[in-house]
Amino acid sequence: MEIIDKIGKYDNLAEPFHCDFSHRLFMGNLGNHLLNAADFHSRDRGFGMDYLNSINKTWVLSRLAIEMDEMPMQYENFCVETWIESAMRYFTNRSFRIVSSSDNDTRPKTYGYGRSIWAMIDTETRQPSNIFDVNDGTIMKYVENEKENPMEKLSRVKMADDAELVRTIETLYHDVDINGHINSVKYIEHVLDLFPLEWYRENTLKRFDIAYVAESYYGDRLNFYRETDAEDALAFKIRITKTPSRGGEEVEVCRSKLKFVQPINGFQKI
Amino acid sequence: MEIIDKIGKYDNLAEPFHCDFSHRLFMGNLGNHLLNAADFHSRDRGFGMDYLNSINKTWVLSRLAIEMDEMPMQYENFCVETWIESAMRYFTNRSFRIVSSSDNDTRPKTYGYGRSIWAMIDTETRQPSNIFDVNDGTIMKYVENEKENPMEKLSRVKMADDAELVRTIETLYHDVDINGHINSVKYIEHVLDLFPLEWYRENTLKRFDIAYVAESYYGDRLNFYRETDAEDALAFKIRITKTPSRGGEEVEVCRSKLKFVQPINGFQKI
Repeated sequence: MEIIDKIGKYDNLAEPFHCDFSHRLFMGNLGNHLLNAADFHSRDRGFGMDYLNSINKTWVLSRLAIEMDEMPMQYENFCVETWIESAMRYFTNRSFRIVSSSDNDTRPKTYGYGRSIWAMIDTETRQPSNIFDVNDGTIMKYVENEKENPMEKLSRVKMADDAELVRTIETLYHDVDINGHINSVKYIEHVLDLFPLEWYRENTLKRFDIAYVAESYYGDRLNFYRETDAEDALAFKIRITKTPSRGGEEVEVCRSKLKFVQPINGFQKI
Repeated sequence: MEIIDKIGKYDNLAEPFHCDFSHRLFMGNLGNHLLNAADFHSRDRGFGMDYLNSINKTWVLSRLAIEMDEMPMQYENFCVETWIESAMRYFTNRSFRIVSSSDNDTRPKTYGYGRSIWAMIDTETRQPSNIFDVNDGTIMKYVENEKENPMEKLSRVKMADDAELVRTIETLYHDVDINGHINSVKYIEHVLDLFPLEWYRENTLKRFDIAYVAESYYGDRLNFYRETDAEDALAFKIRITKTPSRGGEEVEVCRSKLKFVQPINGFQKI
């Protein structure tokens, strides 16, 4: 059966073990739900990862940004809506909206939005692959350019060269995903783990941006460099580099940007 | 509406980001699904965590063991069944069965089983609390002692004093659960992270037992001691201790036992 809806909607529950000390969903777990929604949406429409793999292609997540007015709380049901905002030859822009989905909601509450950029590559050459060649460009049928996403568009994260090295970690069994790469969600968690629990008592993560620059692998050491903002004490940029296990040059793998708010300006902690 | 089924059944999907390099669900994620099932089952029957908290009581997970013939694979639907096998004054024995739940399954496949022990405590005194006092002993209506669980009963994990210190870690933001304690699932993940990826290429985790002895908190350092078995190269015991951030004596927090099999004796890796 062909699915004609351009927008995919996927229900989720903020599971208790996926919530932080403030009883709100961890940003990394929300990111996981967004990536699942993207996967389900594309599978259901004929350009999913499993079909692509069968023709030696795959989706690669290039950027992800999430901006929240409020994080779903423990046991709250929420729905991740996702749609393709635009598709170019080598990239698609995919949007997300996170809304409440409890039965007794008369008017669903919007928790926040997400934006992402995905590239299609050839799994053998690792080169960009033309998205319109897949299933006779079927993806174009699903481009939804009228649904609003009020988030600012993604922009390059510019970083100075003098960011401070704040942590180096080993990659372990749980860091590795089904493709043998370091899991996209784990990078988010490692970045957020750079801030002490006390920080999260006073400050709430409002927006998280991450650009995936290169892949890293089991055994690589990951180095985290932090740049503070002279004009905004609640804004940070983090560069992640890898030092390969066999030695060799340090290479940038991710770049991320965090914007916190204090509860009085943002949403209230319980 | 009163639920009369003694057995709760909860459908799950092996999400791709919850699977390891072999495309099988991580044991820690399965553990999370089991704990959720326990929570949903007790909530639906009038003795859930949220009701207990309102009368200053709570469930405390004392032990958990999982034994698998096969781990659900990426995108597989599976169902966690859970029931109370027996209830004593201060403890309940809760069982789990993990079965396939795809639509086209004519005869569901059993992936494995779990066993757990839960204590009820008073949240003010932290002392054991009589389970039969809650809702006039309503829990007894739900004891299901006919459903089979072929797993060996839980037994004490005895450890020698000369186990080797193999790792010490700091606890970070993502380690802390909604109660401010180190998350029960994170201990499982930290234990499994002691083994290198290469180990998991050759060996498959068949059974995992963990006993929660004491709580640890953000800032505590966790120390992992490993004991090998002279007669079984695929069996390990791990003791976790904490060194409080304010200093002080090293205290045992968990004890766990792992039994691996080689694919030829156990289930096949893809």
